[in-house]
Amino acid sequence: MIVDVSKKILIVGLGLLGGSYARVLKRFGFHISAITLEQDAIDYALREGMIDEGSTGLDEKMIGEADLVIFALYPHVFVEWIERNQTLFKSGALLTDVTGVKRSIVYKIQEMLRSDVEFVAAHPMAGREVSGVENSTDRMFIGANYIVTPTERNTPEAVETCLELGKLLGFANVTTLSPEEHDEMIGFLSQLTHCIAVTLMTCNDKEHMEKFTGDSFRDLTRIARINDLMWSELFLANKDVLLDQMNLFLKQFNSLKTMLENEDIDGMRAMMRHSTERRALFDKK
Amino acid sequence: MIVDVSKKILIVGLGLLGGSYARVLKRFGFHISAITLEQDAIDYALREGMIDEGSTGLDEKMIGEADLVIFALYPHVFVEWIERNQTLFKSGALLTDVTGVKRSIVYKIQEMLRSDVEFVAAHPMAGREVSGVENSTDRMFIGANYIVTPTERNTPEAVETCLELGKLLGFANVTTLSPEEHDEMIGFLSQLTHCIAVTLMTCNDKEHMEKFTGDSFRDLTRIARINDLMWSELFLANKDVLLDQMNLFLKQFNSLKTMLENEDIDGMRAMMRHSTERRALFDKK
Repeated sequence: MIVDVSKKILIVGLGLLGGSYARVLKRFGFHISAITLEQDAIDYALREGMIDEGSTGLDEKMIGEADLVIFALYPHVFVEWIERNQTLFKSGALLTDVTGVKRSIVYKIQEMLRSDVEFVAAHPMAGREVSGVENSTDRMFIGANYIVTPTERNTPEAVETCLELGKLLGFANVTTLSPEEHDEMIGFLSQLTHCIAVTLMTCNDKEHMEKFTGDSFRDLTRIARINDLMWSELFLANKDVLLDQMNLFLKQFNSLKTMLENEDIDGMRAMMRHSTERRALFDKK
Repeated sequence: MIVDVSKKILIVGLGLLGGSYARVLKRFGFHISAITLEQDAIDYALREGMIDEGSTGLDEKMIGEADLVIFALYPHVFVEWIERNQTLFKSGALLTDVTGVKRSIVYKIQEMLRSDVEFVAAHPMAGREVSGVENSTDRMFIGANYIVTPTERNTPEAVETCLELGKLLGFANVTTLSPEEHDEMIGFLSQLTHCIAVTLMTCNDKEHMEKFTGDSFRDLTRIARINDLMWSELFLANKDVLLDQMNLFLKQFNSLKTMLENEDIDGMRAMMRHSTERRALFDKK
């Protein structure tokens, strides 16, 4: 066990994800501090016993004492934070994050970072349609996937610590991918699905459809309730990959459309059988 | 209360939907009989106490005594059944169905039907990713929508009886639409969503993605497990409308893609805010 509970953990950005990290890790007995913009979030977290201390400013003591710093910020805010404040870290501190894109973040931060501090990037594949620390929960990661994206600059020990952190948090699958593999995977599994949901939700403004809907439309549009500021930033940060995935989808959708136009029932049935078979792989174990 | 429990109900096609109808209606004390292809389905339903009697053949007494006949068959099988066997109905019998398309079924059947028997079409908007009577449940319709699609040939009394049946079955919303309105609504809310799910599930054959997925991909592909025989028939029976809906979706998807290509962050954010606002309408009440 590399992560021992005498370690001090600092969470920067106490929202839905940062708050859920705090809830789970506090239960193990770690000393948890938090830096976030809103005093309300800190007050809430203190009342809930999720953190030991919190600050809305750059509390130098809090930053300087942290062994592990978890960043749960918007991508560009995260990069700027490191640029401005990295002198405050304790020597030997380990940094990790929850950012949903990796190529555009990881290399930039590792490039500029002090050599006595290490950053291992990670992506917890979990979320809700609501945000804010008051919606955080210590059960959010159960059954979910956690991806660590190490680079050549990382030490095996730091990577191991991050993998352990994922297990402590309760993730069902803890794996590693390169930043490139991660962004391709996420471009398909997460970003393309959000593009589809938003498109479906906005392509037909007919009124009163909610009275006639079944569960399938609800399922396909659950994630159409979306944080526009964060997701537009994530889309742009993975633009090349996401465009490729959108084109893959378009090609297949157009081929289904052509089959329908031509009343090619065998072709449609073959695609549906392929779909049914492949979906079985994605059942939660 | 037009539907009284002294009425005899016959269900033709004892699968997931027919079985679920039987379970709920039996609880109210109706006499329920069933005609279906498989003896196993009848044996199961008798053991479970869901039906009073069943037959794999054209039991003339069963058909001739039924006050209400509910058809839960594939669309073309339903039309053929009526063509061949309508002489067996009791005079004054009311027929209804569960078919997922309406224009291509309703007029054809009403046109050919004996004048002393009435058919009021209905569509229970509920389903599961599994089929068969052994997966039927008496809770399938709770919170779901039930659409009756009357035509000029229907009497107000028969329409009222069908609406009452929907309420008895436990549907949260029981409404009427014309067959044309129904098919447009369903083309968008149900058929387009199935096209999208099947496309998403089959457009990228990269392996091992299930290890890295979050819930959004699972949500969008739940219905990608699909009965190819039934759905290819439903798609073809609503071809014109479904192609229109696919084109609506394509137009909006391409416009999102263009915004991403042009890094039009304001355009993307506006679409996401529209999406978020509109999705709120579809929350289950």
